[in-house]
Amino acid sequence: MHPFEKAVAANWPPHSWSDCTVMVAVSGGADSVALLRSLAAIRESGPGRLIAVHVDHNLRKESDTDAQFVAQLAQQLGIEGILGRVDFELSGPDGIEAAARSARYGFLRTFAMDHGARYVVTAHTADDQIETVLHRILRGTSLAGLSGIPRARELELGISLLRPMLSIRRSEVEAYLADLGQTFRHDETNDESRFFRNRLRNDLLPLLRDAYLPQVDQSLLRLAIGAAECREYVETQASQLLDVCLMRETDESVTLDAKKLGTAPPFLAKEACVLLWKQHAWPRQSMSREKWEALWTLITGDSPAPFELPGGIRAEKKGEQLTLTPLE
Amino acid sequence: MHPFEKAVAANWPPHSWSDCTVMVAVSGGADSVALLRSLAAIRESGPGRLIAVHVDHNLRKESDTDAQFVAQLAQQLGIEGILGRVDFELSGPDGIEAAARSARYGFLRTFAMDHGARYVVTAHTADDQIETVLHRILRGTSLAGLSGIPRARELELGISLLRPMLSIRRSEVEAYLADLGQTFRHDETNDESRFFRNRLRNDLLPLLRDAYLPQVDQSLLRLAIGAAECREYVETQASQLLDVCLMRETDESVTLDAKKLGTAPPFLAKEACVLLWKQHAWPRQSMSREKWEALWTLITGDSPAPFELPGGIRAEKKGEQLTLTPLE
Repeated sequence: MHPFEKAVAANWPPHSWSDCTVMVAVSGGADSVALLRSLAAIRESGPGRLIAVHVDHNLRKESDTDAQFVAQLAQQLGIEGILGRVDFELSGPDGIEAAARSARYGFLRTFAMDHGARYVVTAHTADDQIETVLHRILRGTSLAGLSGIPRARELELGISLLRPMLSIRRSEVEAYLADLGQTFRHDETNDESRFFRNRLRNDLLPLLRDAYLPQVDQSLLRLAIGAAECREYVETQASQLLDVCLMRETDESVTLDAKKLGTAPPFLAKEACVLLWKQHAWPRQSMSREKWEALWTLITGDSPAPFELPGGIRAEKKGEQLTLTPLE
Repeated sequence: MHPFEKAVAANWPPHSWSDCTVMVAVSGGADSVALLRSLAAIRESGPGRLIAVHVDHNLRKESDTDAQFVAQLAQQLGIEGILGRVDFELSGPDGIEAAARSARYGFLRTFAMDHGARYVVTAHTADDQIETVLHRILRGTSLAGLSGIPRARELELGISLLRPMLSIRRSEVEAYLADLGQTFRHDETNDESRFFRNRLRNDLLPLLRDAYLPQVDQSLLRLAIGAAECREYVETQASQLLDVCLMRETDESVTLDAKKLGTAPPFLAKEACVLLWKQHAWPRQSMSREKWEALWTLITGDSPAPFELPGGIRAEKKGEQLTLTPLE
């Protein structure tokens, strides 16, 4: 077994998935081609299926060729291939790249449900993680964001999204493909966010390594792991606090026990509120530090004047009950 | 009142310290001169004393002139001045700069106790914080390190070390001193760690601002604040867990309830151990992720073979009791 395949197998033991339907997202680039080839090589015989999924965004003129490349590769490996095509026009508040990503995961979710997949795997590498964490640090991030790309998350009930290559470096991917003599497609997309990412990869990270501290990649990877571990703990605690404080939850409003919330550690109380905001998809973008502090003052204070939080969430305290009502 | 003085007063309200003895560490550089001048300007009349302390490390030939400058400034402001001189040779495992810092805080502690000071204040700015956090991110840091320079810590029982300028930018310091027509000394020290810090300040941060993301300073400051808040919560929880798990603690060994520790969230259990290591000044440098995991396996496992952790700490489990014994 090639060392690269051993590394993938160590991250995601084949016996844990060889009996399941596994969908591999394959763009045709080096990372996803290496993922597909390694999974095809290490899977154990059994009733499981490996399916290569290519989502064509029609963003580039080479899109067709990419799709053909993936279809051929799947055929060579004796693997099912599925092509998803985004025919509607992509746009969104966070730009075309974010819209494409959102559409891609939407497709993967739908395909996974249609085909009864247990796992959807993507080929994000340690280099993607390093670049993501560095980008977020510079742009501004909470500790939650500092944990970077998650190794695993639930895509849908019973369907897990996994990244078995998240601890593997891009250089290992390239060495593996060279050893196999396996070709791949070059991603020529160069929209703004990809352009920025390329500058982090090609200019800033080499500068940091060579002129500042050579261990910067490991530093960022370890920071992400530490942040993820801390995050998991904090979110579990926050979720338990929210459960304890929740008095009523309807489509119209949410009522919390202000006394229980107000006697919890302030940090945790805020995290519980963040969780509530997330669960209801209330806008968090404009919830500045000052707004959270105003909410905390309402929760713990004696003179409760109701007020409106960003996104039209009315906060009102009556006795020891805090009620949050989306107005629109 | 000058806007700079207002900002310092907002961070550290004069009524909270004007009755106390306050020691200000003054190198003679811009930051500490601005701190001393602003505190002298905003203090309220009362029984309190303001004392300027200059610690001379004899590291630079200009040391004498720095000391004279601080003494004159204190005299002009009608403030007591104290000079501490490090006459012994500075050296240490982490270099001369770290040894000097350690000696400086040792002096401040001693002087504070001798003069019955309630507060010792230093002039660290938001720029120091930004540079510290960036340096740690590149070098590698835990989440604890990510919180950067603490705003306050206990220097000794009843003596607090505070940084009232930690949210103030260096540019504000410079504008204040220019408005006052106040001169200051230039720190010419250029040892290795200072040299690296200067490169972060003069080369890397300007590059990040101009060629990547202009908000990088705010991003790093907010990250430090978020990390500090999370840190405080986690440490409180870890301390409570440690209290609950502690069965015996003597000079020879520490015995913990392995069952209670092993049923806590793994993240918190590890943090409780980190705290224990800190309290006993056991070496944490070599406690890698693998070593912590080995300890966790011992705590939660059924087949307890005693083993030795870095720094000669023997870990042994008998029944549900985990005993840690420094061997040397």
